[in-house]
Amino acid sequence: MINIGIIGIGRIGRVHGESISKYVKNACVKAVADPFLNESSKAWASSLGITETYTDHKKILNDPAIDAVLICSSTDQHSPLSIEALQAGKHVFCEKPIDHSIEKIKEVLQAVDISGKKYQVGFNRRFDHNFRAIQTAVAAGKIGKQQIIKITSRDPEPPPIDYVKVSGGIFLDMTIHDFDMVRYLSGAEVEEVYAAGSVTVDPEIGKAGDIDTAIITLKLSNGATAVIDNCRQACYGYDQRAEVFGSKGAIAITNDSSSTAVFSGKDGVLAEKPLYFFLERYMRAYADEIDAFVEAIVKDTPTVVNANDGLEPVLIGLAAKKSVEEHRPVSLKEIRQAFGL
Amino acid sequence: MINIGIIGIGRIGRVHGESISKYVKNACVKAVADPFLNESSKAWASSLGITETYTDHKKILNDPAIDAVLICSSTDQHSPLSIEALQAGKHVFCEKPIDHSIEKIKEVLQAVDISGKKYQVGFNRRFDHNFRAIQTAVAAGKIGKQQIIKITSRDPEPPPIDYVKVSGGIFLDMTIHDFDMVRYLSGAEVEEVYAAGSVTVDPEIGKAGDIDTAIITLKLSNGATAVIDNCRQACYGYDQRAEVFGSKGAIAITNDSSSTAVFSGKDGVLAEKPLYFFLERYMRAYADEIDAFVEAIVKDTPTVVNANDGLEPVLIGLAAKKSVEEHRPVSLKEIRQAFGL
Amino acid sequence: MINIGIIGIGRIGRVHGESISKYVKNACVKAVADPFLNESSKAWASSLGITETYTDHKKILNDPAIDAVLICSSTDQHSPLSIEALQAGKHVFCEKPIDHSIEKIKEVLQAVDISGKKYQVGFNRRFDHNFRAIQTAVAAGKIGKQQIIKITSRDPEPPPIDYVKVSGGIFLDMTIHDFDMVRYLSGAEVEEVYAAGSVTVDPEIGKAGDIDTAIITLKLSNGATAVIDNCRQACYGYDQRAEVFGSKGAIAITNDSSSTAVFSGKDGVLAEKPLYFFLERYMRAYADEIDAFVEAIVKDTPTVVNANDGLEPVLIGLAAKKSVEEHRPVSLKEIRQAFGL
Amino acid sequence: MINIGIIGIGRIGRVHGESISKYVKNACVKAVADPFLNESSKAWASSLGITETYTDHKKILNDPAIDAVLICSSTDQHSPLSIEALQAGKHVFCEKPIDHSIEKIKEVLQAVDISGKKYQVGFNRRFDHNFRAIQTAVAAGKIGKQQIIKITSRDPEPPPIDYVKVSGGIFLDMTIHDFDMVRYLSGAEVEEVYAAGSVTVDPEIGKAGDIDTAIITLKLSNGATAVIDNCRQACYGYDQRAEVFGSKGAIAITNDSSSTAVFSGKDGVLAEKPLYFFLERYMRAYADEIDAFVEAIVKDTPTVVNANDGLEPVLIGLAAKKSVEEHRPVSLKEIRQAFGL
Repeated sequence: MINIGIIGIGRIGRVHGESISKYVKNACVKAVADPFLNESSKAWASSLGITETYTDHKKILNDPAIDAVLICSSTDQHSPLSIEALQAGKHVFCEKPIDHSIEKIKEVLQAVDISGKKYQVGFNRRFDHNFRAIQTAVAAGKIGKQQIIKITSRDPEPPPIDYVKVSGGIFLDMTIHDFDMVRYLSGAEVEEVYAAGSVTVDPEIGKAGDIDTAIITLKLSNGATAVIDNCRQACYGYDQRAEVFGSKGAIAITNDSSSTAVFSGKDGVLAEKPLYFFLERYMRAYADEIDAFVEAIVKDTPTVVNANDGLEPVLIGLAAKKSVEEHRPVSLKEIRQAFGL
Repeated sequence: MINIGIIGIGRIGRVHGESISKYVKNACVKAVADPFLNESSKAWASSLGITETYTDHKKILNDPAIDAVLICSSTDQHSPLSIEALQAGKHVFCEKPIDHSIEKIKEVLQAVDISGKKYQVGFNRRFDHNFRAIQTAVAAGKIGKQQIIKITSRDPEPPPIDYVKVSGGIFLDMTIHDFDMVRYLSGAEVEEVYAAGSVTVDPEIGKAGDIDTAIITLKLSNGATAVIDNCRQACYGYDQRAEVFGSKGAIAITNDSSSTAVFSGKDGVLAEKPLYFFLERYMRAYADEIDAFVEAIVKDTPTVVNANDGLEPVLIGLAAKKSVEEHRPVSLKEIRQAFGL
Repeated sequence: MINIGIIGIGRIGRVHGESISKYVKNACVKAVADPFLNESSKAWASSLGITETYTDHKKILNDPAIDAVLICSSTDQHSPLSIEALQAGKHVFCEKPIDHSIEKIKEVLQAVDISGKKYQVGFNRRFDHNFRAIQTAVAAGKIGKQQIIKITSRDPEPPPIDYVKVSGGIFLDMTIHDFDMVRYLSGAEVEEVYAAGSVTVDPEIGKAGDIDTAIITLKLSNGATAVIDNCRQACYGYDQRAEVFGSKGAIAITNDSSSTAVFSGKDGVLAEKPLYFFLERYMRAYADEIDAFVEAIVKDTPTVVNANDGLEPVLIGLAAKKSVEEHRPVSLKEIRQAFGL
Repeated sequence: MINIGIIGIGRIGRVHGESISKYVKNACVKAVADPFLNESSKAWASSLGITETYTDHKKILNDPAIDAVLICSSTDQHSPLSIEALQAGKHVFCEKPIDHSIEKIKEVLQAVDISGKKYQVGFNRRFDHNFRAIQTAVAAGKIGKQQIIKITSRDPEPPPIDYVKVSGGIFLDMTIHDFDMVRYLSGAEVEEVYAAGSVTVDPEIGKAGDIDTAIITLKLSNGATAVIDNCRQACYGYDQRAEVFGSKGAIAITNDSSSTAVFSGKDGVLAEKPLYFFLERYMRAYADEIDAFVEAIVKDTPTVVNANDGLEPVLIGLAAKKSVEEHRPVSLKEIRQAFGL
């Protein structure tokens, strides 16, 4: 039984707390910490049988009975907390992104190496049954030589504008999952990025210096080309599809919906919308990623999404950002060199 | 080049005239005859380049340049015209049903035998690309040993009540196509029928002594069981589906629609309705059945839907009628014996 | 928190034990009892944190801390254990069928009335997200007046022949779920049954006096007609579909599969098979039915599948059996009268 | 009745000859001309009832009974024959592209203006029922403000390498249809192009200086972004899909196949492949584009795909070519300026 402490119990921290309680067999949440701890969050913890609730995360790091921590704080605390937890001898599961700063991510990588502890990054979509079905087929050679990878990723609604302003931009906040997905599905590295961005959803997002719609073309190390289309708003809900096309065929996934019911009426043949957003679509994947993390600890095997998997999508995101700013394709080599990588 | 005369240019006669003009290569319509010939029907004929238009069908039968006739008259004239045309030395394509009277159908069968001419019955659905795909797979052994055959057959709207009154009842008018389809898909004969009927669409149909909704269970000579569901009205259009289930799998078809377009909006994911009715769904099949008829003439091969294929569904229809009336399963043997078959 | 005791920890008992542990918030399994308790079943219990394991079910019934029992024994013990548990003051969840004997079911109904305790029957499919989507739409009047209800229910493989021999026959063992589904989807009662049965899967099943393939037509109290097609073996897996057709449209569900992945290759466009069998398809529904049972206890509301819902499908099953034996439609009135109902 | 002469009776010329014979009511093919006329092509013409067959196209241009010509010659003859035919007073339907040279297209545009005759370019996909369903919905405002347009266009197999060498490159030969489709679906003009190309199908295509796989991003005048993915080979057949995503929803089309048949077997659920190639997929669209051309002549209305619609995709193609060569986004303004447009 692995004892877990969760640092940060905002939305995603609670998702993990609940999915561990419900679905993860070999782990339990022993304590949670949040600087903004209040009655509501204590009640939430209590409902899951978690009695240790702190404002100070050090209480968790200093508890020798706790094996692993989940870092679910605000993004700017991901890397310092990662390092602190590793140095305290804890295994670490850190929400994405590790950091917006490459320098800070490098420090985390170093801390992981020194600590010898497990480190996993929260790219939950890798654990989704649909994406996994593609990855499995591709890795098994079913589509032959990869040629084109397509990812559609559209949110049902944009985040609040105050969040957008501190988000690091669409590429580091939203597309980062798709960059990871390209790496996951292809098993290859991204070598060059060209991004076309626009503001089609909300002019306020544009005023904040960000974009809300993007088409990103990625050249991969295996000779394939990937293309991602993003939008911050799709009125029909969360749209998360992918296709990998190769010499022996194409494998594609569509969205999940809440039932297979189809109504044939005078206006047409109506099926259900996709599941609304990430909590609905990926609830099971959130549990499965913690299962995998716990298994890596128990069996002392490498984590399936390691610190380097946390670094690469940030590099790709920075390349995409630069591509929009400078209106040209940007190679990853150029980005790596800038950061001494 | 086969010269064709069409007797009866109501709706179905015109369908054949047009589809022959458009799609059938080795045949042309030389003449049409209809007792109710008027300016409108002459104009229609003229638009297809048919200049010979008669009120008297004998003009067609006496024309030595005409090889074959299509009998598209009212149902009560199907059998007498069939016999007259065969005796005049014409090949005959006759719309379904040959007759409601088994005695009269027997006379037609005899006339066919004596004449040595080709005789084909208008079960157009056998020529539909979807139903054909099932039949081909079943005949090729793809589903193994047949176990269950399911046919859904629902019209978009009931015929006028005056038509219902002279239609011979739902089984001889509408289900007859489905009885033929069971024989076509299975390649087997029907041995027993149980029919459950009800009036759920229009009480007037009930007052006319007919039903508008039915579930018919058929035991087949190959050990499989078939079930047909019928309704005279489906608000979403013509619903014509089938499934054959067997020891190695199941093969199923759905409806055609006018495009593959799917709209995802805030109310769901909306696809198009099925094509509206038989003219939209089976236009191509109408041409293909005449193509097959012409080919049988030219190559002197048996027609693919012969006079016996016209007889069997009427026997099944009579069994279904008796089943509803007497509220019991009825064997085809019983029906055959009653008619000395 | 509701304390539960499980009597019988064969396959279905374990399903409940696991799904309660994983998914059911307000209940826990305090004890299990099974006359064939062994090391393996103790280990299983222990893995779920259940420490009280008995051979004698009375240990459970005598434990005042236990609020409710789940009866997962062999079918012949369902009704005596139900009565015993009710008399011991426990709420009872009983697997289907309550009994094959109408007399014994009547005794259970009486015991329920006397006890004032909650009684729920294990028709798990009512809790499936797909069937529920149909029921909700139908109950909301979305399809208008019901006309035709179609249910496909095929197992991936037949049970062992020894099980078949004591199963009570296909109608009481397998179709009973579909009879319940007809009542659930329509909200109406069955008035007449006609069943056509055959042996197409395994001659041994026929030798055991049973059938393995059936088409059952049911006349309902609301004027609609339902048709069920059953087969003990479908090589592509568990096939559980339904459609309700009415004056305003039709609503249909298909099977779930493990992902939405579709592979386009040189042989065609290949999607995944349905989920293999009931454990895969209905795992979530098993949890949800216990959730509903617990909620009925906690809130003191009627159970959603009550003892009468356990009786009706058995009556329908007996009518179906008689229909096959006597080769005629059988009214429920006739069956009820025979049992003084 | 419009009399048509076809110049060039290679593959596409024959497609037009046959589809006019079969499906186009108000037109007939009076004569065909081809410098490589031989017995086989004469026999083909004869089978359609075309008796005038020439090696010299001037015979057609000089025939006062011929109203319109279809230019189906090799690409390099499209523009000179267009001009010659217009000057001879004929309406002209010209296969795509008008020319690879912008200067020559400009000459054609001038000739069209001077002649006052109808001029239509062979972008047949605009007449496909599926693409048309998207365009109709978009034009009706159903998806709201356009945001992202996606087009998938993959051929079942690459053309012979000798053809590739003279094809003008993938963008002018294959993608040109997709460039037209972006303009058709969006109703907007392309302002900037970024193309990523690679050779993943056949190294010989690379040696010929061309690419066989491409992802092209297009910025449109209405603020939307379009992305096209191309490949010269898809082992499952012709893959022609599109999606337009906007503020009120998304509308998408998939491929047509030869039937709706789906086989469920032990290996999965298998649907048919897409129709093999353009002849199968677009046969009806070929007829409909000639229908529209004939209607423009008869009613003296503008053609629906005019000479400027022939020019724009070539400009976009040249921008795409330059984008790959210079590895940067290229604005259409830059291309237009280079050609004094």
